[in-house]
Formats: sequence, C-alpha cells, structure tokens
Amino acid sequence: MNRLLLEAFPDIKVSVEPEDLLCYGFDASGLEASPSAVVWPKDTGDVVKIMKYAYENNIPVIPRGAGTGMTGGAVPSKGAIILSLEKMNRILEIDSENLNVLCEPGVINGRFQRELERLGLFYPPDPASMNFCTIGGNVAENAGGPRALKYGVTRDYVMGLEAVLPDGNIIHTGVRTTKGVVGYDLTRLLVGSEGTLAVITKIRLRVLPLPEDVITLLVLFKNLEASGHAVSKIIASRIIPRTLEFLDSEAMMAVENFKPIGLPKDIEALLLIELDGHPSAITKEAEKISEICRSLDAEVSMAEDEAAREKLWECRRAVSPALYRLKPTKINEDIVVPRNKIPEMLKRLRRLSEESRIKIVNFGHAGDGNIHVNIMVDREDKEEYEKGIKLVGQIFKDTLELGGTISGEHGIGLTKAGYIGMELSKPEIEIMKSVKKIFDPKNILNPEKIFP
Amino acid sequence: MNRLLLEAFPDIKVSVEPEDLLCYGFDASGLEASPSAVVWPKDTGDVVKIMKYAYENNIPVIPRGAGTGMTGGAVPSKGAIILSLEKMNRILEIDSENLNVLCEPGVINGRFQRELERLGLFYPPDPASMNFCTIGGNVAENAGGPRALKYGVTRDYVMGLEAVLPDGNIIHTGVRTTKGVVGYDLTRLLVGSEGTLAVITKIRLRVLPLPEDVITLLVLFKNLEASGHAVSKIIASRIIPRTLEFLDSEAMMAVENFKPIGLPKDIEALLLIELDGHPSAITKEAEKISEICRSLDAEVSMAEDEAAREKLWECRRAVSPALYRLKPTKINEDIVVPRNKIPEMLKRLRRLSEESRIKIVNFGHAGDGNIHVNIMVDREDKEEYEKGIKLVGQIFKDTLELGGTISGEHGIGLTKAGYIGMELSKPEIEIMKSVKKIFDPKNILNPEKIFP
Repeated sequence: MNRLLLEAFPDIKVSVEPEDLLCYGFDASGLEASPSAVVWPKDTGDVVKIMKYAYENNIPVIPRGAGTGMTGGAVPSKGAIILSLEKMNRILEIDSENLNVLCEPGVINGRFQRELERLGLFYPPDPASMNFCTIGGNVAENAGGPRALKYGVTRDYVMGLEAVLPDGNIIHTGVRTTKGVVGYDLTRLLVGSEGTLAVITKIRLRVLPLPEDVITLLVLFKNLEASGHAVSKIIASRIIPRTLEFLDSEAMMAVENFKPIGLPKDIEALLLIELDGHPSAITKEAEKISEICRSLDAEVSMAEDEAAREKLWECRRAVSPALYRLKPTKINEDIVVPRNKIPEMLKRLRRLSEESRIKIVNFGHAGDGNIHVNIMVDREDKEEYEKGIKLVGQIFKDTLELGGTISGEHGIGLTKAGYIGMELSKPEIEIMKSVKKIFDPKNILNPEKIFP
Repeated sequence: MNRLLLEAFPDIKVSVEPEDLLCYGFDASGLEASPSAVVWPKDTGDVVKIMKYAYENNIPVIPRGAGTGMTGGAVPSKGAIILSLEKMNRILEIDSENLNVLCEPGVINGRFQRELERLGLFYPPDPASMNFCTIGGNVAENAGGPRALKYGVTRDYVMGLEAVLPDGNIIHTGVRTTKGVVGYDLTRLLVGSEGTLAVITKIRLRVLPLPEDVITLLVLFKNLEASGHAVSKIIASRIIPRTLEFLDSEAMMAVENFKPIGLPKDIEALLLIELDGHPSAITKEAEKISEICRSLDAEVSMAEDEAAREKLWECRRAVSPALYRLKPTKINEDIVVPRNKIPEMLKRLRRLSEESRIKIVNFGHAGDGNIHVNIMVDREDKEEYEKGIKLVGQIFKDTLELGGTISGEHGIGLTKAGYIGMELSKPEIEIMKSVKKIFDPKNILNPEKIFP
C-alpha cells in the first residue's frame, strides 16, 4: 500500500520513513502506534485528493495538528495514514472592521495571538500548550484554557468552517456574522468532534478588541479550603476575572523544583488571578479581590510589569511538564465540577490519595471548576499503574456525583472512551454514533475514538 | 382521533374547542392552519406520554412557546397536535454561586430577566418580543436581540438541556459547567433546530453578574450613510456597546405615528446605543462615541434616567407593530451582512424599493449587521403582494453576495424554507436531513419545517 500511496500523490509530500512514522505515531497522552504513512497537504484541494483516495481504498485517516492532545485523539489506528495539517498554516484574512479572521488549521495558537495583538485584536482561547498547539486542533478538541472563565472556550469563537468529508466532498458551515440561524448548527457539531466527522480546512474565528489593561495577582494561601472560599467570594462579589488559576502544594513544589520562582514552603494553595478591561475598573476590582483574599489570611502580590506577568504564566504553563520530575507517568484527567464544589472535590481527591498511597497533584482553572487531576505513577511498576488507573473510575464517579463532567477540555479520544457511559446515557450515545455514520459511513476518519 | 386523544390523557389538559384551534393555529408570521387538538403538558412526564402516543399513532406534533415566531415554525401541519409548553413555566433553580439557572421552556423571557435582576444577575438575550416570548421558543429558534452585539445570542447561554425525543425517550445534553467536551455537541444541535428534533423540557442557562451601570444614547443622523460610518468608527475605536440599534426614516415615521416621542422630521437615520459596565469606563466610552457621531454631523442625547431609557426602548420595540399602520401586510426578513457592508446593503434596498415602487422599511441591529427588512404590501392586492414576494429572492441574493446570511434570528420555519438552497449546498442540506431522520425517523415532530 505504501508505494501505491506515494505514487497516488505526485504533488503532495508523503513519507513512509521510519523516523516520520515514529514521530507522528504519538501525542501528549503517552500512547503510541505506528501509522502506515504521513501526508502533508498544502491546501484544501490536497485534502480532497487524499480523502477520495482513502475513501475508495478504505484506508483510515487520522487528522493531526501539533500532537499536543492529552487523550490520544491523534494516535493512529492500524494501517492508518496520518494527515498532518501543519503545512496549512496561513492566516488568510484579518477583517478588523468586522472583527473576524479566516485561517487554516495548522496556524499555531500563540503565533495567531501575537499577530492579532499587534493589530489591537484579541483571541481569548489560550490552552497551556498555546505555543505549540494549532488552531485546527483547538477547534477539533474545543480547547479551553485559563481565560475561559470570562471569555468562554474555542466553540464560542468559531463562526464558520470549511471542511472535507470522508468521501472528499467539501462543506461550508456557519456564517461570517455574529448571527445566523439557517438550518442545524453543523459548525458546533464539528467543533469538539475530535477529527471524527470531517477534516477542517478553513476556520473563521470571531476576535475581540484587545483589552485596554491587564492586572495579574499572585495569591498564596496557608489553607487549601480558604482558596476555594476565595473563589466563591470573588464571583459572589460580581467580579469575573479573566483567569482564576489554582495550584495545590504538590503542583507548586513540582514547579519550584523545575523553574524556581521562590514560592514559600508553608502554603497549601496558590491562585493566579488576572483581570482585564478599563484601567480604573480593574484597579478597583483588584483592590476588592485583595481585600477578600487577605480576609482569608492569604498573601497577595501584584505583577509589576509585563515581564513579571509573563514569568508567572511561564510557571503556570510549566506545571504539566514539571510533574514528570515527581514520577515518570502521569495519568492526567481534566474533570470539571460546579465551581462551588471545588473544595469538596479536592477533599475527596486528598482522601483517595491517602487511601491509595498514590500521589495526586491538582491544578487548573478554579474559576470554571476545571481541575487537572494528575495521578502520579510509574507505568513500569505494573501494580502501581493499575492502582492508578483504578482511581480514575472513582474520581469520575465523584465528579459526576457533584454535578460535573469527566472532561472539560481534553476530549475523550482513546483514553476516556471506556468511561463515556458513566456520563452519557445509551440513547445519547446512540444518537452520536448515528451522527458519526452520516458523516463517515465507512468509518475511515479517526476510527476507534470517542466511542468504546 | 380527537375523542381518542381526549381519552388517552385523562390527566392532561386537551382541547378540541374551535376557539382554541383558532388561537393556536397561527404565529407572528401571519400564516395559519387548524390543528386537530391542543395539549398542555404540565411536566416532562406528560410530554413523554404525549410523544409516545403520537409516535405510535403517527400523529404530527408541533411544539409551541408563545407563538411569537416570525417564520411559521409553530404553525400546524395537517392533522397535527399543538403541544403548548406554556404551563411548564417554572424557574426550577437559581444557582447564584455557579451563575446558572435551570428553568422550564414556558418561562417568559421578560419575567426571567426581571427575576434575575432582582438577585443582581443578568440574562442578556433580549428579543424584541421579550415580554411575551418564552425561553423554550428562544432556545428552539436561537433567538438574538439588540444585546447580541456584545453578549452573543441564546446559543451562547445554553449549557444543557433535557429533551424528549419523538419516540418518548428522554435525553440530557450538555453540562452545568462552563466547560464540557464529552461526545458531540447535542446541546447546540438542538438550539436553533426549530422544534424539529426533540421537545425541550428543561433548560440550564448561564447567567452573568448584572452590569454595574448602563448609559443609553439616542443619536440622530441627517444622512443615512453617516450612520453606517458611525457604526464602523465606533467598533474601530475598540468600543463594543451592548446595543447599536438602527432605524431608517420610514421606521421612525411609523413609530412617531404610533407612539410619538417627538423625533424631528428631517433625519434619515437613528441609532440607539447602549453601553454597560463600570461607570467610569462607560462614561469615557460614551464621550468617545458622542465625539465620533458629532463629527459626522449627528445630534446626540443621553437618557437621563431609567424611565427615559425605558421609553426609548419601548419605541424601538414598537417598530414592528407600528409598521402595520403603513400597510396591512409586512413581508418581514431578517438578513445579516458583515457590519461594514450595511451602507451598501441599505443602498441596494433603497434602489430595489424605488424600482419596484414598494415601500421597504429597515431597522435592526446595526452593530452585528442584522437588518430587519420589511417589505410593506397588501396581501389582498395580489399583484402587489407577488411583487413583494419577488423582492425577497433579490434581497437574499444581494445579502449572500455581500457575505451575509438570509436569517439572523427568525429561523427558517415555513416562510424561508424555499430559499435555504440559496445559502446551503446540497451535501450540507443532505447532512441536516439525515440528522433529522436520526432524531425523528417517522417525521412526526414539526414536519414540513426548515427543509423544502
């Protein structure tokens, strides 16, 4: 098949080199498998050619952005071609007057943000992997990020899509205006569909004017529960910060060992709070937040300038890689509970950790209830690994009991597929599987994902 | 069948009285037809019973909120039962800490707004019919309103739904948290599906803290095009007002005749601009907007208090009924164009009006490009009416040429079904029809709507 594939696309870059098959065989989930080939389309026309060929020959195709996904969504199934969208990385149109941008899926989120900022524009979704991950991957996974508290997730910014169906037909969904209600919402059906319904080839995103000013606060709590109360009190005082990030003491220690910034040792929780908007408005909000936190015996400091601010965020974004210093394997879940249930959920996680004697490190987006729960084990230690995996089921049970969801931003992919029956009922899953069949009757587009 | 129906539901209110069949046979589109019966379920259990009966007996069912829809979505097809959700009108839970509310579909939007405001909370979607229309209808149609410019549409506030499928099965979609990416997005598939996929029985809506302050500006332009430039300049200056409403001179005259507020006669366009947020921030924004508008030779005044503000909004909301003073029939379209194409679209509309000698009155949401185009005719004058209907096709053609959409908030229903092929391609429509079949294999739920 491989040679046939090379001959089928004389104008498209295709590789069957072992090093490419290795590099494109895994993502951030730690899972891996070998694809039969990797192809790099340059434009929609190339994607159409590849999908038509795959459709005729029943070859599975795995669309792939930067491979930063946490749940194995881009890990190939047997015999599959990896369709890497990294060369389709142009920003095609920046429409400042109507506040929207048309781009290809391979554009890196961080680059996109910076190009817009230079024009006084703002694209809020900011996953921790923003300097590597692609907008296409963000759309496929409905990526979130710290700023989701105030600004929502990727879904809230996608206005319309161009996508190639598994049979090679092109569809256009949505509109280039804020409003539009013609037919069913295929745009949001594709957002978060994890590359299982169509290959997204163009994306029109809503953007905002860049906020006038930003204030970043670092708040250190001696008591874990006090940090939860602070979050509730801030929101109850009618302030919606743009971020309300949380690190527990284990997460802080991991960062201190990785990128020291001099955090004291006797604190149980850290909040990284960011406000944006009109300078006088956010100054008042920052004062109010400081007052709330100090009344809960916390220490508050403000980033003096952009450099200090960036340093704090670098630390936040370093948490995930830093954890590998603790243990070689991290079983990484991204549960969400209603924000006022965070203290209860953290208490349950602590109990689970104590009972199982397995380290559980928690950090994440306290403002929207999205906790990144990291079960730290060693995959080589079979007994420990299995104990860790067993904890996942219990954590999901607790999450759902508290009114939450088993995934806030990572998606289902392969790693969570076995658990979706805990959250979704049979008729709901049946509807989703039927939707999959409409788009992909031959089941060639990212098969084996989402549904067990 | 009618008697059987009465016997089938001893505990549910059912009517086959001629006056009920008359009152529940039309909506704001002006279309009408007689249903075979009207039923008023009290809760989800009642809806399940009704749908199971209809499914077994192949009876079409038309879900109905308040009947304020503009495109005939609630007008019955032959032999259909009207399923009125008006008795399912309870607000079930207001979760201030997590900023969301659970309610039944029959809650009136205006009542919902007022109850929340008393608690310092805010639900932005505000269709002009807000004092009559229901939240369930808003969700089914993905209703917008003036505040969509800053705050988005109904879709952006729906977190999760309970819905009854045509076969009587209950599904739960979405989550009660900001984030959630488990499986395909069935929530947004149901939002805007115009009652064709499932009967929505519970709705969880995201709410916001009530903005601290509001400023309302009335701006009068001697020149129509200047008002378009003002809109562009305001957005370019990085201000996003919560509303930027537009009335042309015909619309103003209609209001003056209906509810006089003393508008001068020599103006060509009016903008109703509202800002909300921190007092010092919006005061500065209001100054900047006044400066922009005055530089375009406009007259700016500010509503002094809540009563003055409400008076202005009453006028805005009176436009639609006031138009009936001009002509007995209004063919009402709600096109959207990218906001910077509004002046061009208005120019084209004026030309069409002059050429056809048919009055076209325009008003709407200038900020998001959503223009309500009202072709004023007399249905009894067959020639004039047909000329009016012919204009619709041309207006849609112009709209799409300028990058717009044929419906911003009214949906497709019956009146626009013949036109969706102008905006959507065949494969797109085929996917939508297949989605309909998954949910409603017997085609009993609001049949004949959306698809021609």
